Amino acid sequence: MRLVGVLIACVLLSGCVDSKPQALSSWAEGATKSAIIDFVAGVTSEGSPDFVPVVDRIAVFDHDGTLWAERPEYFQFLMIYEQVRAQAVDHPEWREEQPFKAVLENDTAYLDGLDYAAARQLSAAVSGGMKTTDYMALSHDFATRSLHPGSNARYADLRYLPMLELLEYLEGHSFRVFIVSGGDMGFIRGFSEPLYGVSRDRVVGSSRSNMFADDSSTILRGEKYASMNVGANKVLNIDLHIGRPPVFAVGNSDGDLAMLTYTASHDGFVLLLSHDDGEREYDYISGAEVALQTAHEKGWAIASMRDDFERIFVRTD
Amino acid sequence: MRLVGVLIACVLLSGCVDSKPQALSSWAEGATKSAIIDFVAGVTSEGSPDFVPVVDRIAVFDHDGTLWAERPEYFQFLMIYEQVRAQAVDHPEWREEQPFKAVLENDTAYLDGLDYAAARQLSAAVSGGMKTTDYMALSHDFATRSLHPGSNARYADLRYLPMLELLEYLEGHSFRVFIVSGGDMGFIRGFSEPLYGVSRDRVVGSSRSNMFADDSSTILRGEKYASMNVGANKVLNIDLHIGRPPVFAVGNSDGDLAMLTYTASHDGFVLLLSHDDGEREYDYISGAEVALQTAHEKGWAIASMRDDFERIFVRTD
Repeated sequence: MRLVGVLIACVLLSGCVDSKPQALSSWAEGATKSAIIDFVAGVTSEGSPDFVPVVDRIAVFDHDGTLWAERPEYFQFLMIYEQVRAQAVDHPEWREEQPFKAVLENDTAYLDGLDYAAARQLSAAVSGGMKTTDYMALSHDFATRSLHPGSNARYADLRYLPMLELLEYLEGHSFRVFIVSGGDMGFIRGFSEPLYGVSRDRVVGSSRSNMFADDSSTILRGEKYASMNVGANKVLNIDLHIGRPPVFAVGNSDGDLAMLTYTASHDGFVLLLSHDDGEREYDYISGAEVALQTAHEKGWAIASMRDDFERIFVRTD
Repeated sequence: MRLVGVLIACVLLSGCVDSKPQALSSWAEGATKSAIIDFVAGVTSEGSPDFVPVVDRIAVFDHDGTLWAERPEYFQFLMIYEQVRAQAVDHPEWREEQPFKAVLENDTAYLDGLDYAAARQLSAAVSGGMKTTDYMALSHDFATRSLHPGSNARYADLRYLPMLELLEYLEGHSFRVFIVSGGDMGFIRGFSEPLYGVSRDRVVGSSRSNMFADDSSTILRGEKYASMNVGANKVLNIDLHIGRPPVFAVGNSDGDLAMLTYTASHDGFVLLLSHDDGEREYDYISGAEVALQTAHEKGWAIASMRDDFERIFVRTD
């Protein structure tokens, strides 16, 4: 009975989870870590003016550049390139046709300037009509086996350890955590459970106009996207998939700005990850200019990879 | 320590939940109840050839006619009629214009023949541009306060008690339960938590092309539906929102047939509710002819309201 008493005391005092030595242990002590802990303490303390009922404890995380790295290119694009190379034997015409030709010749100058329309063309060519289950298996294999060109680490090893700790910390305080990404929904769902502990139904991404196949058991990927989950669409898809505003949102780019603003406007906690560590990761603000400026103006929390992350990656870095 | 030991034994033996006296207590003893219990025992028994890991334990329930009644008309339509009457003072032109005129004059002959296009026209007129939060508040009030025309019960009192017990039973065995309905997503989300214990993120319904309003905190209902969640769309939306096939599916009409077939094709349990109790509820097969025939042919479980439900409604009946 004594053990039960201790467990009950833990729940009532809600101090046991916080005091676990490993909670947020890769976060440097400082204003950002304190702001996270203070916010969570407020919303989870019964009787606090900031208390938030469990049903409303929704946290949303962007994926690329927030939960794992996004350089030298979105990893999803790199998987598409890998697939173009793997399927090229069946498509001799690709040798002469852009954007396929650039992929096969590793024409980095061309690929650096690849626009979304061309990326979608590549994606449709290698995965349109594929079974959704096969596509998830493909992305799982890619994330856990293929090697990142910049570091020769597996992509899974380029997840950010402090963010994994934050996911766990929030879940330990009865938050329901969703990944809300511009990336393809099936791509992320292929590894969200083993890599993040986030079940597929809590992954919101860009979605295809899929097809229900004739044998009544199989769903096939459409060639076109029905919803590109960036900007204001992130807010609309949060409403579509979750049905209430988040009280905790994490992002790293201008594509997250609408989602972060929406969260802030409902008194939620907003955290912007700043890629400012050229030694251990990358140093860039390209694509995040407005988000960073807004964060400074509004007083949102900013996580500096250089100053706030004592470790960066899951692997030893 | 003894209490903890008992708790651990319960989990290991997984027999404690089943033996709770109230589990499925409104279900009559018989083949259907036994089939449910046997299936759940199989998928939750470690080492069983039928064992299903927790992450895959997805259950989907249709709403109208499955979790609550759907006669004399879908309750959502009755709320729309109520709103037409409430808003008519601001729309004098509705007195002369169909289908509004029929609602205001309670022209039941006209309304009985109302097609979906006309119903959508009414719905757009009374709720297009409304805040999604206001619409959910409206449907909550409607479900818990307004009176059903056939019985003068509140709509909430016309939930089926055996189905509520089944939701609880599945959740007690680590299933994640989703409502997958042709009804408007916002309509059902307005009451899914208090009435069913199903959080809004587990409600999949027909969805509007909503708008993110200028003040960055508010989402407004679009006038048109982006996805009508019936037939094959139920399967595609299950994949969109859940990301894996259900292993347990419950429906009552031909609009559920694709979802039920999809579930069966993945070795899931399929239950079709048959409205065959004219004394205590309604007796009809209209709109369920193909589903019933398929259930008989395929050997799916059928729940007869007359024979399998010892009680029908949450209220005393």
